[in-house]
Amino acid sequence: MTKPSSKTIRAFAPASVANVACGFDALGFAIAKPGDIVTARLDEQPGVHIRSIRGDDGKLPLEASRNTAGFALLEMLQELDHGGETGISLEIEKQMPLGSGLGSSAASSVAAVVAANALLDEPFSRNELLPFAVKAEAVASGTPHADNAAASLLGGFILVRSNEPLDIIPLDVPDQLHATVVHPHIEIRTEDTRIILRKQVSLAKAVNQWGNVGALVAGLMKGDYDLIGRALHDEIIEPIRSVLIPGYDRIKKSAMDAGALGCSISGSGPSIFALSQSEEKAHQIGEAMGHSVKETGLDSDCYISKINTQGAYVLDDS
Amino acid sequence: MTKPSSKTIRAFAPASVANVACGFDALGFAIAKPGDIVTARLDEQPGVHIRSIRGDDGKLPLEASRNTAGFALLEMLQELDHGGETGISLEIEKQMPLGSGLGSSAASSVAAVVAANALLDEPFSRNELLPFAVKAEAVASGTPHADNAAASLLGGFILVRSNEPLDIIPLDVPDQLHATVVHPHIEIRTEDTRIILRKQVSLAKAVNQWGNVGALVAGLMKGDYDLIGRALHDEIIEPIRSVLIPGYDRIKKSAMDAGALGCSISGSGPSIFALSQSEEKAHQIGEAMGHSVKETGLDSDCYISKINTQGAYVLDDS
Repeated sequence: MTKPSSKTIRAFAPASVANVACGFDALGFAIAKPGDIVTARLDEQPGVHIRSIRGDDGKLPLEASRNTAGFALLEMLQELDHGGETGISLEIEKQMPLGSGLGSSAASSVAAVVAANALLDEPFSRNELLPFAVKAEAVASGTPHADNAAASLLGGFILVRSNEPLDIIPLDVPDQLHATVVHPHIEIRTEDTRIILRKQVSLAKAVNQWGNVGALVAGLMKGDYDLIGRALHDEIIEPIRSVLIPGYDRIKKSAMDAGALGCSISGSGPSIFALSQSEEKAHQIGEAMGHSVKETGLDSDCYISKINTQGAYVLDDS
Repeated sequence: MTKPSSKTIRAFAPASVANVACGFDALGFAIAKPGDIVTARLDEQPGVHIRSIRGDDGKLPLEASRNTAGFALLEMLQELDHGGETGISLEIEKQMPLGSGLGSSAASSVAAVVAANALLDEPFSRNELLPFAVKAEAVASGTPHADNAAASLLGGFILVRSNEPLDIIPLDVPDQLHATVVHPHIEIRTEDTRIILRKQVSLAKAVNQWGNVGALVAGLMKGDYDLIGRALHDEIIEPIRSVLIPGYDRIKKSAMDAGALGCSISGSGPSIFALSQSEEKAHQIGEAMGHSVKETGLDSDCYISKINTQGAYVLDDS
């Protein structure tokens, strides 16, 4: 069908914060930076070929079916021509650490399918690309969950109503809502953070949790920052996963003391996010959190932005 | 403080649908009818005196501290003058059956505090009355839950983010959203329906549930009827409680076949509600559900209205 050419497409997909305190496996939002860049070009050999990966310290497999970006693209090509003669090669530039809780695997998958879709003259709409990236998430974490991939692809604040069938609800985002995300320099494997979760939760806590999820959605839709803050509580996951993050309680307290609306674990950690109502507050919170991380003996990176409502996009086209 | 007079205040408080499929103990909305009417007048004797109750088949206690309307008003007077010399007598007209799942106890409590508040020249705002009615709910059901009382008092569709401290979020209501509520003529005691619930739920089902709660809130705020329909699922409570309602699955199916957006148990049952997008559909659904109830050998009442956004109100002032 498609013939090899020298056409090259680079796409960027942003990091994302999943779970968002009360919304385990159901809520996510995109941030401006960091993000992954994937370059796609047509290849004479059918299938998906990962030519290079940079920024992963050699940890990610080049074999397409074992790499989330490769897997997502294989799923896309399967849908497109049932594994026919289309061949695409990828170069992956990781610009965020693995196991950081920033949706690293989702960003690579999303960037890969966005780049390849542009390369093939957009056979799929943006929404139609999501299932390919979500299936690839199962490769990375053991379970298909759409929160990171949907936020990275579509941008904004998203709610996963259902993973099967996939039902993603875009939520409104108040204009001044800022995210501060601090990444302490330790790695946590998503698989490990899932294993320690209990399979059963108390009904009473579950009721509190869905009250908070509903309230967070209402707060976002109403632009009610105070309500957003009241809703950012997690009685179920945070108490368990936070033990894997050195100094978590103190870091969170420093964020709240600095004026955060709320603060919790980003994805499965170790990154920690805080939401606030102004850029100034977001920076003050970042400084306070960075200082608290330092007290645990760890270095950290800090990313500050509004909620990224753009999502993934093609960088250039040569 | 206040002196006895012949002033009489009558207040109406509407029935309400609590839980609303996915939102156990967290969501509720008011309907137009039925509702309870409470008449309040000043009494020379300090305290709360229930002079008469009609429509309860003699089942409700006249003793104020054991009656939800009396209890709510006692809480209100305690807050007002710490159990001082204010005396109020009540006449309660139950216009809906007990144990129907329509928030009967909440309607009486709400009507009582609204009437008494007007009688005393509004010492409390509408929102400030809610805690009194919520405390009275514990008398009726064994646990304090605010979903019925908040919906009956404030009207509209409400989210209970937290019972302690009380945090009630009013949600937008799409203009054409109609409720059909069918009450099969059997009684279910709320206490009994709570006892059969499991204290633990699976994390996977809880995640689905909070995805649906978030989606229902988003659907209401966006005025997206299709999304409202997709969100009206309950994997946790309905499978357990519905066994107490004869023919439940068939009644629900008849509602869905007649075009309901969703259908589930109202409160703890046996009433069953369905939501739809027009008055015409709401009537067709009511006919279909009534027919299905009849097939189980039971009679039923049917109530059809838009979501009642007015809530409780004073009927007249003589």
